[in-house]
Amino acid sequence: MNLKQLSEMLGLSQTTVSRALNGFPEVSEITRRRVLEAAEKTGYRPNKAAQRLATGRARSLGLVMPTSPDHHFDVHFGEFVSGVGEISLKHDFHFVIMPADPRDEEKAIRRLASSGSVDGFYVGYLRANDPRIAMARSLGLPFIAHGRSLGLPLDYPLLDIDNEAVFRDAVDHMLSLGHRRFGLINGPEEYDFALRRRKGAEDRLAKAGIMLDPAVCLAVPMTDSEGYQAMSALLDRPERPTAVLCSSTTQALGAVRAINARGLKLGRDISLTTHDDDLPLLKPENFSIPLTTTRSSLRAAGIRIAERLIGVIEGDRHYPDQEIWRAELIVRASTGPAPN
Amino acid sequence: MNLKQLSEMLGLSQTTVSRALNGFPEVSEITRRRVLEAAEKTGYRPNKAAQRLATGRARSLGLVMPTSPDHHFDVHFGEFVSGVGEISLKHDFHFVIMPADPRDEEKAIRRLASSGSVDGFYVGYLRANDPRIAMARSLGLPFIAHGRSLGLPLDYPLLDIDNEAVFRDAVDHMLSLGHRRFGLINGPEEYDFALRRRKGAEDRLAKAGIMLDPAVCLAVPMTDSEGYQAMSALLDRPERPTAVLCSSTTQALGAVRAINARGLKLGRDISLTTHDDDLPLLKPENFSIPLTTTRSSLRAAGIRIAERLIGVIEGDRHYPDQEIWRAELIVRASTGPAPN
Repeated sequence: MNLKQLSEMLGLSQTTVSRALNGFPEVSEITRRRVLEAAEKTGYRPNKAAQRLATGRARSLGLVMPTSPDHHFDVHFGEFVSGVGEISLKHDFHFVIMPADPRDEEKAIRRLASSGSVDGFYVGYLRANDPRIAMARSLGLPFIAHGRSLGLPLDYPLLDIDNEAVFRDAVDHMLSLGHRRFGLINGPEEYDFALRRRKGAEDRLAKAGIMLDPAVCLAVPMTDSEGYQAMSALLDRPERPTAVLCSSTTQALGAVRAINARGLKLGRDISLTTHDDDLPLLKPENFSIPLTTTRSSLRAAGIRIAERLIGVIEGDRHYPDQEIWRAELIVRASTGPAPN
Repeated sequence: MNLKQLSEMLGLSQTTVSRALNGFPEVSEITRRRVLEAAEKTGYRPNKAAQRLATGRARSLGLVMPTSPDHHFDVHFGEFVSGVGEISLKHDFHFVIMPADPRDEEKAIRRLASSGSVDGFYVGYLRANDPRIAMARSLGLPFIAHGRSLGLPLDYPLLDIDNEAVFRDAVDHMLSLGHRRFGLINGPEEYDFALRRRKGAEDRLAKAGIMLDPAVCLAVPMTDSEGYQAMSALLDRPERPTAVLCSSTTQALGAVRAINARGLKLGRDISLTTHDDDLPLLKPENFSIPLTTTRSSLRAAGIRIAERLIGVIEGDRHYPDQEIWRAELIVRASTGPAPN
């Protein structure tokens, strides 16, 4: 049974039947009921492409996925998508993933928006002065940024965590334990979140009269191997740091291995904190020596972004435009008093 | 510029212009050129929903993503999707992800297929006698199964690894080192791959006159915490195994932690092999004591499945219907002679 057949059976035009099925107000209640009953009896299922033309709704969210042969799918992105999926399922939405070269995401966003396949989209992996914000605004579809863009006014819809506070709180905790020699294993500083974290650490250390040597500020991809290499480089320095901050538990996994490989004891010879996105794969409390962390769930961010986008698309919910979440400091055994 | 305006400008019907843009043969070469030139000059971009109705092509692959509040996004699924994304990008395809309750994937597949949003789809996480194979075949769209379904004839398009050989090869290696007391940390045995792995281990051990006690055959989710708990349970047994097989490096991460926590030495007191999906996050060669593995890249499987699906959709490539890959045994330091 297709739309044409259903319409002929009812003696109505295809437009009327389509509008009745999609709840348009210009169709009378009596006609609407007649159409819905016939659709149910005959098992008619609307063709989504046709329905989309009629209603202008795809019930779909758009996401751009950075992809290239040397850019492996990121577990952090996966955890975020898991939250988006949970809410999409609840609201009978699906989502369209547009793979894009990381250097060519703008094209992918334009294509998503012009495709007619999505009702709204999300912009992530923001950089400083990111041109995608102005572009996103020009496309005429609801969007939300996951993160902020240093240098731009905060006048676009966004959800972010307070990344300055992430490293500031960790430095505070280390200072209170008497540490004076610091090192950073940050994420790639092409991204806004990493720039803000570094700034948070530098500002707090400056107040304590400590200047961070650029040579101990490492910015590397969020993987185990990179964490291992970065920590090894820090430990090989003549004046090695006693307090190290990591940007992800994936980096911390390698960093801890580098500490163990040198026969040093975590929490005694060297203290380590890490930001924890609450990845189910890597629980900081499960490390042999549990890790001190700042924690904020990426899955919760995916859930919230999907809820906000769907709410705006359906026009029935109002949310604050800018939400900045504060991560929680959780002290465990990986941080201890500075060694003498 | 929309289709209507472009058509009026050219003095052609919208149908003719749409068919010309989409390369339909019933439009003359001269008209086609005229339309394409005008489209280029005016910067006309076709509306994808309209284009889809005209051509019946969405340039899109469908994937079902198992999702529920207690089912976190799986890094293994993410790695597979990363391969699908790489090939989709290359061929100018995107993909549609339909989140589904793991107990209700059939509905999600039906919705994907009937939506008109995808040109083909993939079926994964297969179980024994899986009803989704017959259903997938009935939907009239190209599909590929990732995996097999015990109990069904091998007459559907699929890509799988030889899962019997995965554990058989690992057992063979352990037997050659003199081990006689075995334990399994398998994936959830509701899935075909885990059933086959267990069978591979049991068959090979039976030939050596060894019966696996069901109490040492643990089937758990593929996470660090589950690996830790399963290995702890094995090590707490009065007659503890000297040779343990894991189904994933994520389980092995926790299993190694459990071994260390008891002061046992990996590769001497207890030998461990794991299947390695080549997750960039967890490299078995990077463990403090590098792990012996059977290796097969999940990303490569995603690449191959996307290539095959797109090839069939575009009608220009022919592939074998059933491909079964053999994983490679790589011996490292986590396996050693059986202790006396």
